Amino acid sequence: MIENFADRLLGAIERAGSPVCVGIDPVYERLPSDFDNVPDPVRAIEHFSRVVLEIVAGIVPAVKVQIAYFERYGSKGVAAYERIVADALSAGLIVIGDVKRGDIGSTVRAYAAGHLERENSPDAITVNGYFGADGLAPFIESARRLGKGIFIIVRTSNPSAAEVQDFTDRQGKKFYEHLAEQVASISNGEGLIGEKGYSCIGAVVGATYPAEVQQLRKVMPRQIFLLPGYGAQGASARDCLGGFRSDKTGAIVSASRSVIYAYQQERFATTHWKDAIAQAARDLAADIRQTLDSEM
Amino acid sequence: MIENFADRLLGAIERAGSPVCVGIDPVYERLPSDFDNVPDPVRAIEHFSRVVLEIVAGIVPAVKVQIAYFERYGSKGVAAYERIVADALSAGLIVIGDVKRGDIGSTVRAYAAGHLERENSPDAITVNGYFGADGLAPFIESARRLGKGIFIIVRTSNPSAAEVQDFTDRQGKKFYEHLAEQVASISNGEGLIGEKGYSCIGAVVGATYPAEVQQLRKVMPRQIFLLPGYGAQGASARDCLGGFRSDKTGAIVSASRSVIYAYQQERFATTHWKDAIAQAARDLAADIRQTLDSEM
Repeated sequence: MIENFADRLLGAIERAGSPVCVGIDPVYERLPSDFDNVPDPVRAIEHFSRVVLEIVAGIVPAVKVQIAYFERYGSKGVAAYERIVADALSAGLIVIGDVKRGDIGSTVRAYAAGHLERENSPDAITVNGYFGADGLAPFIESARRLGKGIFIIVRTSNPSAAEVQDFTDRQGKKFYEHLAEQVASISNGEGLIGEKGYSCIGAVVGATYPAEVQQLRKVMPRQIFLLPGYGAQGASARDCLGGFRSDKTGAIVSASRSVIYAYQQERFATTHWKDAIAQAARDLAADIRQTLDSEM
Repeated sequence: MIENFADRLLGAIERAGSPVCVGIDPVYERLPSDFDNVPDPVRAIEHFSRVVLEIVAGIVPAVKVQIAYFERYGSKGVAAYERIVADALSAGLIVIGDVKRGDIGSTVRAYAAGHLERENSPDAITVNGYFGADGLAPFIESARRLGKGIFIIVRTSNPSAAEVQDFTDRQGKKFYEHLAEQVASISNGEGLIGEKGYSCIGAVVGATYPAEVQQLRKVMPRQIFLLPGYGAQGASARDCLGGFRSDKTGAIVSASRSVIYAYQQERFATTHWKDAIAQAARDLAADIRQTLDSEM
């Protein structure tokens, strides 16, 4: 029998000891000077991403691979994305493809086939919920059938998020809460809830808005929250706490730039770039673990 | 000097005689029996798409290429998408890449580079506006600088659209109108409005909701509307009228399945599949043209 994605993810988090995820967002211009003699940017970002995977595989349970940085280079870049996802799976990591796809149902059927159903597809992907239930159905069907997961974007982590997403109805409900209610309602269907009580349909909630995170935890009790925004975008470990249930489960904190470009930080000025990344990944894991243990 | 995308599109529509666009949504399982002996689905959908381009290039001003049907096959499919986009550009068509990308600003910078700034990138792409202004800024910057266009999804054409997008505030304003207001306000920036008074930042508005189309025309006076939903999704030419201004400009009607799979329709049972597609494209162009001329 196929294991529910939520159970797989929670199991991996438990084994690794901290609910964190490293985001692979490789930007050619930010790579260490070792890559100055790799003139092909796709080869360079692929090689760099592979080294990052090797470094973090023993430290964190999961990685989130941002496809945009590969799509920057067209199909050649996408081929590199596929190899990185495959390598991350081989390394035993839970792999989230950060693709944020969304469309009408017939089109989403094709996206689901391409991003969840192929050999070496990621364990889960991020998706856009703006089209509503029929636009999500094929993703959910793939997740149910193959033990995969999806994370529906509910509240984004960027500065402009509120302008759009805080639109409020006469009862004071915000649009992102309305979307969260829809996510909660479609996530309880047959075959979606795992043994640990969570759905394979999770939510993306920006940790840069801690009050919203806390409130959304109540609206979506069975969703695992993918929390971007820690580190480079400004959220602290404490800002992430509201995403967890009182038993310290139910969320995974994702940090990208603050880990993979750690060697550009002052504190690592004299550290080899690989050691800087390793230390930043350990610091991320320890920070979230310790904050959960001391504050909850 | 670089010509504004809105002017280019309106010029192409004027030359072709009808504001219509054929959607390239190639599904292997629906191809004509000629393709039964092409066992590689990517080769088959690429070849089919190329034939469709050749047929419609003399009939319509624009095509919309849906990347999902290529992404279904991973990077190999994306390479085929790139070749089809390049061929459509060579054929003199205005090419809209239906990619619906959206993310935080730093990530969208990479998507803009990949989908608008490469050699043989489409003239315009569809994008998701849920992240707000900072998530759209890199797309807008590319459009301004390179004479490209973006169409921001405002109201989708699918059955579930209303569940999510009709969320209403205390003044009776719906969420999609709120989003439309944001689109209107960010589309008037310096260098975005062309000589004909339209912005290179357009909107996707589903023709399956004619009352909403008409109302959104008022909220977004300077946006060109990309209107999906005609044909297979059920919208008629009359349903599209509200998207046009009284001078019969300002919108482009997109039809996909009703044109490219025309040979599966009863009325074309004895027609060669290529002739069926050509006739369906001519019918689409004539239907929209005649409805505009007789009803407005």
